[in-house]
Amino acid sequence: MEGVLTGARGVGDAGANQTERGEVTDGQRAGPHEKLLLLQKNSCKPWPRTRAKVKGCLGCLARVLCRTGVARWMCLAALGILTALTSCFMDFTTDRVLNAQRWLMGSVGGGVGLQYLVWIVCPIALTTFGTGFTQSVCPQSAGSGVPEVKTIMGGVPLPDYLTLNNLIAKIVGMTCTLAAGSPVFLGKLGPFVHLSTMVGAFLNRLLSIVCEVGEESFHYEMLVCSAAVAMASCFGCPISGVLFSVEVMSSHFATKNYCRSFFTAICGAMMFRILAICSNERETILPLLSTSFPVDFPFDLPEMVFFAVLGLLCGLLCVVYLFGHRWIIRFTLKNKILKKLLTTEKTLYTGLVVFVLASMTFPGSVGWLMASRLSMRELLTSLLDSQAWVHLPQNSSEPWPPAQVDVKRLWLEWTPPGISVFTTLGVFLSMKFWLLLLACTIPMPAGYFMPVYLYGAAIGRLVGEFVAFVFPEGIQSEGSVNPINPGGYALAGAAAFSGAVTHTLSPGLLVLEMTGQLYHSLPVLLAVLLSNAVCRRFSPNFYDGIILIKKLPYLPMVLQYHPELCAVKVSQLMKRSVTVLARCGKAGEVRAALTAVQDSEIPVVDTLDSMILLGSVCRSELIRFLQESTGSGLDRELGEVCIIQPTTAQLLSETTIKQAHAMLTVLDLHPLYVTEGGKLVGVMSSSEMKKAIEDLANGKISPPT
Amino acid sequence: MEGVLTGARGVGDAGANQTERGEVTDGQRAGPHEKLLLLQKNSCKPWPRTRAKVKGCLGCLARVLCRTGVARWMCLAALGILTALTSCFMDFTTDRVLNAQRWLMGSVGGGVGLQYLVWIVCPIALTTFGTGFTQSVCPQSAGSGVPEVKTIMGGVPLPDYLTLNNLIAKIVGMTCTLAAGSPVFLGKLGPFVHLSTMVGAFLNRLLSIVCEVGEESFHYEMLVCSAAVAMASCFGCPISGVLFSVEVMSSHFATKNYCRSFFTAICGAMMFRILAICSNERETILPLLSTSFPVDFPFDLPEMVFFAVLGLLCGLLCVVYLFGHRWIIRFTLKNKILKKLLTTEKTLYTGLVVFVLASMTFPGSVGWLMASRLSMRELLTSLLDSQAWVHLPQNSSEPWPPAQVDVKRLWLEWTPPGISVFTTLGVFLSMKFWLLLLACTIPMPAGYFMPVYLYGAAIGRLVGEFVAFVFPEGIQSEGSVNPINPGGYALAGAAAFSGAVTHTLSPGLLVLEMTGQLYHSLPVLLAVLLSNAVCRRFSPNFYDGIILIKKLPYLPMVLQYHPELCAVKVSQLMKRSVTVLARCGKAGEVRAALTAVQDSEIPVVDTLDSMILLGSVCRSELIRFLQESTGSGLDRELGEVCIIQPTTAQLLSETTIKQAHAMLTVLDLHPLYVTEGGKLVGVMSSSEMKKAIEDLANGKISPPT
Repeated sequence: MEGVLTGARGVGDAGANQTERGEVTDGQRAGPHEKLLLLQKNSCKPWPRTRAKVKGCLGCLARVLCRTGVARWMCLAALGILTALTSCFMDFTTDRVLNAQRWLMGSVGGGVGLQYLVWIVCPIALTTFGTGFTQSVCPQSAGSGVPEVKTIMGGVPLPDYLTLNNLIAKIVGMTCTLAAGSPVFLGKLGPFVHLSTMVGAFLNRLLSIVCEVGEESFHYEMLVCSAAVAMASCFGCPISGVLFSVEVMSSHFATKNYCRSFFTAICGAMMFRILAICSNERETILPLLSTSFPVDFPFDLPEMVFFAVLGLLCGLLCVVYLFGHRWIIRFTLKNKILKKLLTTEKTLYTGLVVFVLASMTFPGSVGWLMASRLSMRELLTSLLDSQAWVHLPQNSSEPWPPAQVDVKRLWLEWTPPGISVFTTLGVFLSMKFWLLLLACTIPMPAGYFMPVYLYGAAIGRLVGEFVAFVFPEGIQSEGSVNPINPGGYALAGAAAFSGAVTHTLSPGLLVLEMTGQLYHSLPVLLAVLLSNAVCRRFSPNFYDGIILIKKLPYLPMVLQYHPELCAVKVSQLMKRSVTVLARCGKAGEVRAALTAVQDSEIPVVDTLDSMILLGSVCRSELIRFLQESTGSGLDRELGEVCIIQPTTAQLLSETTIKQAHAMLTVLDLHPLYVTEGGKLVGVMSSSEMKKAIEDLANGKISPPT
Repeated sequence: MEGVLTGARGVGDAGANQTERGEVTDGQRAGPHEKLLLLQKNSCKPWPRTRAKVKGCLGCLARVLCRTGVARWMCLAALGILTALTSCFMDFTTDRVLNAQRWLMGSVGGGVGLQYLVWIVCPIALTTFGTGFTQSVCPQSAGSGVPEVKTIMGGVPLPDYLTLNNLIAKIVGMTCTLAAGSPVFLGKLGPFVHLSTMVGAFLNRLLSIVCEVGEESFHYEMLVCSAAVAMASCFGCPISGVLFSVEVMSSHFATKNYCRSFFTAICGAMMFRILAICSNERETILPLLSTSFPVDFPFDLPEMVFFAVLGLLCGLLCVVYLFGHRWIIRFTLKNKILKKLLTTEKTLYTGLVVFVLASMTFPGSVGWLMASRLSMRELLTSLLDSQAWVHLPQNSSEPWPPAQVDVKRLWLEWTPPGISVFTTLGVFLSMKFWLLLLACTIPMPAGYFMPVYLYGAAIGRLVGEFVAFVFPEGIQSEGSVNPINPGGYALAGAAAFSGAVTHTLSPGLLVLEMTGQLYHSLPVLLAVLLSNAVCRRFSPNFYDGIILIKKLPYLPMVLQYHPELCAVKVSQLMKRSVTVLARCGKAGEVRAALTAVQDSEIPVVDTLDSMILLGSVCRSELIRFLQESTGSGLDRELGEVCIIQPTTAQLLSETTIKQAHAMLTVLDLHPLYVTEGGKLVGVMSSSEMKKAIEDLANGKISPPT
């Protein structure tokens, strides 16, 4: 036992040097004593008095703000505002680019060849530039980012995922993706969750410096709030943002973070909507999508059956979609040509894929059957139209296609003369299915939520049109008869499909918040619940699928798909070489221990022979002990001077990894000491847990036989 | 040490008898072995074969339902449906009684004396009957019930709070309270949370019998879902119901309960709304309150400032209100006359209070200045009116007061001729303040959420009318000018005041769900956040105030108001006499241990002298050991046959109560063994924790010096 554990031995006074330099590695708490030592050096810059005064005032202000907790709230507000500003900047830029593209399409005249060139060149140029830029600045920025954020929230900090490089790559790459428009058909929510997490991490670092506390103090809280603010600043929907954050969290949501999440989300949503007013898009604060649903009679009671059927249908389709997604990702990883392309020639790969996507959606080809001239937002608005298209008179006197998209009558794009709306919706659904799967393989930052949201809206619209076709007068229940509103079905379909893809219920609220009306809340929630029930039974969700394929160190998924690993014991994972102090330790040993490790607390045992764990002493206490010992000249024992904090809970070597993980993350008890019959045999801290999960994900640890 | 711990000694075969009788006390898991033993007795009833077949089929069905988890979901659906049915039954009854009262008032003619008699007699009769009934059936049913539910969710089962008596008393008492109408001015949300918890507890018991599992398996989940379903079935608002349940939970919300809560809430809300259609109240599923807010321009951006001011004002008023509430409750407990009245003559006390309340609100007296003829729902509808009353022309040609309440023009009640709307709203606010505090002391089931909700709406209305008065044309920002909508302020005020009283944000969503519109979501949430910020700083919330005064064993409140108790150690609270088994224990000792305790697992130590804890063996394993030993005739040792489950986490005697509580409730690790240097010194299970919290709340335990 003694060979395994490193007892503290005197190694000169290197410990004091270390402390004066004040080097604090990531994840450790620097006590106020150490910070004070840092400030004692005098410098020789001009106006020392004035500078000292200003510094003092600022320090005083910072202390007041930190002590009253105002600094934290300011940080949260800044998080909301910054994220919303980024979101609006992106929207503004992409809108301009898309408008320019549309203008160009209109002005090149009637030549189909030239139009085709314009149609494919713009997206290819934008996406290849985006891919090249992101891959050279930070390759980790590609993809959604949500799986990585989930992993980070699960307690495993991933390198390169919260850096400035990643932030820049994400912003530029995402703007390119969005500006490529509807041919590429990708959104921004996922990367925005990641982006806001990065902003949150930076603000957290700032706060920890100003308040002189450890970075980990507010780290988790900031992560939670970042997840909440993403949806708020992308769509201006604070409530569903908070719910989304509750749902994607790990097993337990700490209710103390609830108010903070709401505050951040509201700051973000408010900023987002105010900026929409400032840019003259809107006159006042209004929901993102305006609908013209009837408010007196939104739907009839028997229609609930169709909404339920829609939910089940969405759930089943979602299972197929998720299977296809996992298949195509695995295929790109296994197929030799694609693998080579994706490792060495990412830009070429992107160009090729976008070429296929754009060609298939060109309005001159099959694209005229799938309303491909509409932008993503116009598509959504058109699908939420409250009038049933099957009953619209087809006006064949007007020339078709009209030269420009008629923004007042977007449905015109869905009803080419002589073609039934069922055909266009059917073509849209079958084409977009594989195009979307293809688009998911592009190696650049992109959100996959908005596409499935739109896809779901189209499913809902199809069902709604069918119901309207079967019941042209509406459903006769008691009394009055009201026509069917297929827009309501589109709403429910969007929520049900995107909810099933992500295994969350918050999209149900999102559709309601986006349209500003709650009249459809019950049918929408019913559809979301049913689609979730189906999809959860048969498939992991989109993000977990990526976690599985990428083998990210996210414990719940690792254990779910390798249940045999639940039996892994702490004794297989713990750090066995622990720096300990004996109760009778003297100043020399304490100094050696402080030098050897940078932990915020050091365990104390009865004697180095018995190794019976007594508790731990925190770093600042040990520094005080050293100072007193040096000052008084007495050679006293550690146990006489320092308060030995009893450890509150110990792990046993037989504890399973799942329980240890829960104690570390949910109860925030760390480090945890591992004992066997009272003897200290190891330690399990966040870093050990991180390494353990990584090893588990990569199959480096096998369960005990 | 050995004196404290009771080692297992052979006491004949009493253990086997106990097992055959199958007595299972509350909170314990009866293994399948024990249940099987129960079924072995043959009975001599008619048609044994048919009965056995039917029994077998039912048993098979139950097993399938239980194994697939369908039974749990069915139980949750039943919870939602039953709660909604109760709610609708109550609404239906009270509506009829209130209509009868109003008809009586109209038909007694112009005599003020007779009208006064009718006005006061009905509420007095109803409330005194209600008080008498509830006090004789179950005195614990009085009051809101939310503080008790919080306590139960905190892990301390209160006796008499989840019984059938309480359920009956609650339903009858609450119907009387609601039927007493606007003079008494009390609601139904709080008792409904309690009521649905009782329904949930019954369903849980049923489920545990059908599925042959321990009652505690789904107990907590049922409690969480019950809290969510209350708001859904009272107001038909599922989303805010779930959020309310997240907020009033203890420190952590388990996300696995999220979907279940939503499902239950949606079942409840759906049933509630469908019943509204069946009773011909509504034609289709619509929100509870219909507003006529403008949707193109709900409010102007600069108005956000007034909404913020409203939030702060509501927060401040709420602090005063909560102080008044605590004061009056303490006063009734201290004042000798009141104390005597409330212990012996509760019915008389209720009669006296309701006499005061009804007299003060009589429309012939000061009541005509506070729209007291309106019912609670009419009051709310009138306050949410979108037109500004200050600008309405006062039509003095019509006689006033009109003989009947004009349901189309409810605002007439707020604008008597010659009286400004500021006066009526001011009188309403100042009178209702102390009347409401007085009403809170009535000892019968009553909700205090709806009254504060209405009170907040009146505050908001007052602010809104003031803004409309100052800016008669609306606020000139850029471009168009739109008139002020004081209804929006009433919405925000209701959310802000009730949110502050309960320290929750979900009322913000509740007002939106009730009106079916989300246009005001940002100002409402802003006001709620600000009022919460103010009130949380200066006052405990309404429910926690009652917990404090009643000294309920709710650990977070106990520790918050007696921080010195945080230092209480597990060693002060644990059970020291533990039945243990040695590794070398034989059949006789095992039998004795099984007889001595009914725990689901029994700790195993190395030897009874060393007391080094090895782990625990579960009851079914021990029964198997006994059966094998008896069958084979070999005298083997426990350690050779049984699997000794290692304990996953141990407490130390120095662990504080807070941490032990977190490990018991959040991580659901129980029982927890307490060790000192590896030696077992005690055990801490839910029942010890319950007793500990009760003792702490009553000041029976003092912190270590």
